[in-house]
Amino acid sequence: MTLAEASAVSELGPGVYRGEVHDGWDIGGNANGGYLIAIAARAMLLATDRDDPVTVTSHYLRPGRPGPVDIAVEVVKEGKRFSTARATMTAADGTPILTVLGTFGSVPGPGDDAGPTFLDGRPPDLPDPDQCLRRADRARTEGPPQSFAERLGVSLHPEDARFEEGGRSGRAEIRGWFELLDDEPIDTVALLLATDAFPPTVFNIDIPVAWVPTVELTTHVRGRPAPGPLACRFATRFVQNGFLEEESEVWDRAGRLVAQSRQLALLPRA
Amino acid sequence: MTLAEASAVSELGPGVYRGEVHDGWDIGGNANGGYLIAIAARAMLLATDRDDPVTVTSHYLRPGRPGPVDIAVEVVKEGKRFSTARATMTAADGTPILTVLGTFGSVPGPGDDAGPTFLDGRPPDLPDPDQCLRRADRARTEGPPQSFAERLGVSLHPEDARFEEGGRSGRAEIRGWFELLDDEPIDTVALLLATDAFPPTVFNIDIPVAWVPTVELTTHVRGRPAPGPLACRFATRFVQNGFLEEESEVWDRAGRLVAQSRQLALLPRA
Repeated sequence: MTLAEASAVSELGPGVYRGEVHDGWDIGGNANGGYLIAIAARAMLLATDRDDPVTVTSHYLRPGRPGPVDIAVEVVKEGKRFSTARATMTAADGTPILTVLGTFGSVPGPGDDAGPTFLDGRPPDLPDPDQCLRRADRARTEGPPQSFAERLGVSLHPEDARFEEGGRSGRAEIRGWFELLDDEPIDTVALLLATDAFPPTVFNIDIPVAWVPTVELTTHVRGRPAPGPLACRFATRFVQNGFLEEESEVWDRAGRLVAQSRQLALLPRA
Repeated sequence: MTLAEASAVSELGPGVYRGEVHDGWDIGGNANGGYLIAIAARAMLLATDRDDPVTVTSHYLRPGRPGPVDIAVEVVKEGKRFSTARATMTAADGTPILTVLGTFGSVPGPGDDAGPTFLDGRPPDLPDPDQCLRRADRARTEGPPQSFAERLGVSLHPEDARFEEGGRSGRAEIRGWFELLDDEPIDTVALLLATDAFPPTVFNIDIPVAWVPTVELTTHVRGRPAPGPLACRFATRFVQNGFLEEESEVWDRAGRLVAQSRQLALLPRA
């Protein structure tokens, strides 16, 4: 099942869309947050009749479980270049799972870049994807994907994957590649998923933590990606008072910055 | 007039609040965006019965002009620690000006800091406030404040204020102090204003630009400030395709990180 299929929505009525949280896009029973955002963004793109998310902020309300979800979308402003909309996703029993505020429009693809440019940064240093460590259920070697990690092609810089063996790099950083399976093209909605598809940066520093629930995640889409895997870097600079921020930069194969994100997350005691 | 007075709201009915965009909190006739957010946040705090904004995202829809505004607030989730709400501010003629999504709760004040801490950063290097350049209408030397710059105590690092004389530092960075007038205490709502109260970072690099309209601004409140001026640093790393991001860090007099922000803004041709 492609991401496009797994995140598809249909219109139920004016401003109401139906999607489905598919089985297997979860981590320990809870649907990946970026996957939920992708479903909501598809509904918001239909409601606004726009091509791409430009900036999308989501607040996670409750865990998403497999099953149908409804997305109620309200277009707050339709402008010439952009439309702004808000949406709330609810489970079949009416429980709100996710609430989203976004502005939608069209972002330039490879070859369309224009205007004054100032870049104080570059793609992360990464070995080729086959030299990185693929996130997957290592116990299984055949059969269709069964877990979130197997639904995506996420592979980590070996230095940043030490936490998987009980080690730590000492830097609150995770670098790696993001791809979709079977050469599915990465559209701008998939970028929203990419910015929430990697393990927490704090697994690589000396802070006892088992999981890091996201309160809020904002992604800026800065370009439509060129074909090929995306080079991603996630970093955290400030952990205090039970909160941390985690930022990402996402670069395409042509060396273009295609997304940036920042999230505010909680640090529960391990 | 204090910021608390200028951003006050009263309840008109269930979920509807009335505020006023006061004269003189504008730049060239348009109310400062952070000031509008402060008004909306006061309404959202009343609706959620919480102490502090924790993370607030605003999308600017149309310029705000002096006059009454209504803020319609919907509480999306009331949790144990946090409440999540969304709000839209409209002018007297019903025009939507601002739409906001936020999570509210209580953030620790000085002396209440707790939990594991990891800080990869520190307050910006700043001369004392009286060695920095105060933003104000320099033509006037007496009388009450007349402009947005005079309503606040914003003073810039001399190196980063060169654009005021037609020069540039060459770095897309603005460092400075933020205070309120007459020793008004800086609460967590004022932090939302602080993250949108400084001149654009791109004034300091070689990109022709007259103004930088914000599409979206997200502020994370990381602590309640200790008394005294706030040391602020704004920076931009990526200008491309007519968009740029601008980030801030806001530190209190005790050296605590009290807010972080990131905005997505447009780069219109000068």
